[in-house]
Amino acid sequence: MSFKITGSGSYIPSVVENNDKFLNNFFCDESGIGFDIDNQTIINKFNSITGIVERKYISSDLTTSDIAFQAAKNAIKDADIDPETLDYIIVAHNFGDITCNSKQVDTLPSLASRVKAKLKIKNPECVAYDILFGCPGWVEGMIQAQAFLKAKMAKKCLVIGADALSRVIDPHDRDSMIYADGAGATILEKSNLKGGILSHSTLTFTAEDEADFIFYGESYNKTKGNGDKFIKMQGRKVYEFALINVPAAMKKCLDHSGIPIENLKKIFIHQANKKMDEAIVKRFFKLYKIPMPNDILPMNIEEFGNSSVATVPTLFNLVLRKNYMGHSISRGDIILFASVGAGMNINAITYQV
Amino acid sequence: MSFKITGSGSYIPSVVENNDKFLNNFFCDESGIGFDIDNQTIINKFNSITGIVERKYISSDLTTSDIAFQAAKNAIKDADIDPETLDYIIVAHNFGDITCNSKQVDTLPSLASRVKAKLKIKNPECVAYDILFGCPGWVEGMIQAQAFLKAKMAKKCLVIGADALSRVIDPHDRDSMIYADGAGATILEKSNLKGGILSHSTLTFTAEDEADFIFYGESYNKTKGNGDKFIKMQGRKVYEFALINVPAAMKKCLDHSGIPIENLKKIFIHQANKKMDEAIVKRFFKLYKIPMPNDILPMNIEEFGNSSVATVPTLFNLVLRKNYMGHSISRGDIILFASVGAGMNINAITYQV
Repeated sequence: MSFKITGSGSYIPSVVENNDKFLNNFFCDESGIGFDIDNQTIINKFNSITGIVERKYISSDLTTSDIAFQAAKNAIKDADIDPETLDYIIVAHNFGDITCNSKQVDTLPSLASRVKAKLKIKNPECVAYDILFGCPGWVEGMIQAQAFLKAKMAKKCLVIGADALSRVIDPHDRDSMIYADGAGATILEKSNLKGGILSHSTLTFTAEDEADFIFYGESYNKTKGNGDKFIKMQGRKVYEFALINVPAAMKKCLDHSGIPIENLKKIFIHQANKKMDEAIVKRFFKLYKIPMPNDILPMNIEEFGNSSVATVPTLFNLVLRKNYMGHSISRGDIILFASVGAGMNINAITYQV
Repeated sequence: MSFKITGSGSYIPSVVENNDKFLNNFFCDESGIGFDIDNQTIINKFNSITGIVERKYISSDLTTSDIAFQAAKNAIKDADIDPETLDYIIVAHNFGDITCNSKQVDTLPSLASRVKAKLKIKNPECVAYDILFGCPGWVEGMIQAQAFLKAKMAKKCLVIGADALSRVIDPHDRDSMIYADGAGATILEKSNLKGGILSHSTLTFTAEDEADFIFYGESYNKTKGNGDKFIKMQGRKVYEFALINVPAAMKKCLDHSGIPIENLKKIFIHQANKKMDEAIVKRFFKLYKIPMPNDILPMNIEEFGNSSVATVPTLFNLVLRKNYMGHSISRGDIILFASVGAGMNINAITYQV
């Protein structure tokens, strides 16, 4: 018996914004003081570190649960299942539904209930709930779904990662250029085929001040201090934390599966920052004393930005669907899902396609 | 092997407000029109239906994660465990942390990460996440914890239900008199003792318009329409929904355990509304064609109000700790946990103490 992904789907937001969007922003540091370099230089530096050229935002008429529904619909179609047979709908997000021009996070009812209603599922035994777990929420949702399958509480689970960070960005914070919107979804089922989830690992770090690394805080522009909150990050601390802890967590997960590193075909890592992701994966291979293979790391951050919980399932869906950027995977391939984000949380899944 | 509660704790908020607090509120209906009866009459009617005489709010310096931490600390002490041995911290809530005088729901990082940080737990393998599942969140967290125990992913889980509804009440809505703050927590462990969780059942209803029955909406006072949102309820629809669906769900859960109804000692039901809760339990017994026993239903809504996810674990802790209102339970007793709330979600657990 195995636990396999039988379908995947994503929603690609329609509003594409390139880096020029930020040319006229007033950027300042956290104490409100502007920088003595021009925005073009700031943008160039940003691009060279993060790799981001453009990002995608949802249109003003949509909220996170709308795009979660679209990704779910596509995953259900891809799996070719009757949605009434779903035992769980798990939605990972971090900011609920925020309507355009509002700053109010709306989490009542849960986004999972809203998605279930939009899918018009009648079966009340399909349990719909949300998890909050930072960017690693979709990976964690998959681990929870597997627990329900293992415990014989479910046979088919829909796991969605969806966020609309465009609704929580501070226009005065350079980090705002990183964030994007998106939704990805998968169906996890009990199966008689070999492979599926081979191992998993999750860590939550709060012993030092990690819980404050990524948080909801006020604008850097103190003259706009009306109490509104935005997504905020202590970028340097996040970078150092990730480089120290993520490679080891990925190794622990892969080793637990018993699969040799040489058999690993692709790594689907949270699209946080191109330089950081590459550095993490290089360090991961260094732990095995082998160089990072050239074709191991599909990336879509250049044109998608960092869409939080949505990055991993969206990238997975793109590669499965249309060999994104020359990357492809086939039945039997071993892949690793890995993520890091607010909490601070880190997780990984070794998976055989 | 069984899955048993080895410790419980609660936090009792310090600010006690009786019904007179609302004597001078301008109450209106959802279209903004005031009522042609005085507030004393409104309050008397409210009291006769809900049973609520007073409710407890947290002090202005606290948020939900603070009281979740306090309840957790008490549960850990009661279980007499080393917090470093916890495999999961699951926090059920509905509105994140909202600071006093703010209307912004703050869910980044998760409340579970904040609680873990406050507990000073160093072990990164203790996974901390939040679930959003309406008022039945704590019961659902227990069901998820059991799944992790069954799937051999955990041995000890901390499950917390905490909310501060005082931060999301519309002073112009009569329903605001219902809501309160609170936090309750339990430790669920794998055990060699008999009993523990015997059966469970969860339902999510969204096929009609149930997802809109309890929601986050604007003030009834249209002159204050600044976009701020508050907890809102279609009270009549919730009442009818609960009376139709909760007794059947409770029966399904109990029957699944194989325990005869005559052996049921207590029902710990979500403290939503006294009349509604009593009507649900009467209908539940009617399904077995026996009258409701007099001593089956501990209630604390009179002095605690409806504190959302916190009601069931708080009431359980009170009865365990000090025979609250003459109710007591002893080893071997069969009890039922049951809840209903936003989603709309219903769940139940048959448990042997």
